[in-house]
Amino acid sequence: MKFCSNCGHAVSRRIPPDDNRERDVCDNCGAIHYENPRNVVGTVPVLEDKVLLCKRAIEPRYGYWTLPAGFMELGETTTQGAARETLEESGAHVEVGELFTVLNVPHVHQVHLFYLAKMLAPDFAPSEESLEVKLVAEAGIPWQELAFPTIHHTLKLFFQDRAEGRLGDGRPRVHQLDINRPMRLAAPAANLDGAASPSSASAPAYGA
Amino acid sequence: MKFCSNCGHAVSRRIPPDDNRERDVCDNCGAIHYENPRNVVGTVPVLEDKVLLCKRAIEPRYGYWTLPAGFMELGETTTQGAARETLEESGAHVEVGELFTVLNVPHVHQVHLFYLAKMLAPDFAPSEESLEVKLVAEAGIPWQELAFPTIHHTLKLFFQDRAEGRLGDGRPRVHQLDINRPMRLAAPAANLDGAASPSSASAPAYGA
Repeated sequence: MKFCSNCGHAVSRRIPPDDNRERDVCDNCGAIHYENPRNVVGTVPVLEDKVLLCKRAIEPRYGYWTLPAGFMELGETTTQGAARETLEESGAHVEVGELFTVLNVPHVHQVHLFYLAKMLAPDFAPSEESLEVKLVAEAGIPWQELAFPTIHHTLKLFFQDRAEGRLGDGRPRVHQLDINRPMRLAAPAANLDGAASPSSASAPAYGA
Repeated sequence: MKFCSNCGHAVSRRIPPDDNRERDVCDNCGAIHYENPRNVVGTVPVLEDKVLLCKRAIEPRYGYWTLPAGFMELGETTTQGAARETLEESGAHVEVGELFTVLNVPHVHQVHLFYLAKMLAPDFAPSEESLEVKLVAEAGIPWQELAFPTIHHTLKLFFQDRAEGRLGDGRPRVHQLDINRPMRLAAPAANLDGAASPSSASAPAYGA
């Protein structure tokens, strides 16, 4: 931030009174401009034994596979945001269920929250955000072509929990993980451990 | 937002290309300014049969009791933020445990996340943010003088789950609630059902 969004004057970087860290402060109107992490909300859309994946039609990670997810918007709840993103990216109407993963990605200032979701019908379609949308059984997951580590972890945990019978009891365990890897984009078909984080901390980086 | 934080020119409110909702867009440099909900992260600090409460020394809700919590900062994880806020507001060092509540407060564009936390010692103290800090047993909770609905819900669920033996098995249930009440401040000692939501959607409203 270089200019005050309230009055247009230049801001300076300093610690405001009664605070303990540097903020962008306007010396003209006194406005203090806080910046905070953003939530990415999404779902694991399930139909019978399959999950719904989307092939990204936008950068970053164009052409890689993802679960439907995106930035939470003002005025909505986490579950509303997860359902909205699912519809926008995959065309699927879902019933959002339990929270499943909470994944901190502090180097890009994001928290990813994925919910289990029941597909209400086998209806889905490509969109402006997705080149292709498909239902995939565990054996068909393109592990080497997933867009982000949070997608990899969420899918892996989903199939693990399902194999252990943990998803059916109405009380799935919420998994929390911190992903501290530096930003690095994997080459196509790279080893999964080298899979990418979002390429930038700015809002459009994940693909709202 | 009135002015572009990147170049200082006036912004206009419109739907950018490839988007579906209005944003503040700069017609000079092209910057799109996204706004997203903020996370408030906190803990239920536990020592033996008591929890640690703080009496707020800042507005909103000056003089009301709260669990230690505040806005998540850039570069930290939800648990790091919860531990930091706990230390800042109460002077207590805690070991942050399982996620316990996820509370959407969409009318103030916030998500509150509370973690169970073990106090590492019976050490705590008032701070710039807290007039008083004390360990309280269930019978001593000042239900009529709690600062926010999210504090009320989190404490109520904590004591319910504890009574039902749900906290000791290493797999507490995560509770998710949406608080859709309009903003309204309760008079002191008002009925609990009328307890207040944060009084403003701006960042300093909760008390960073």
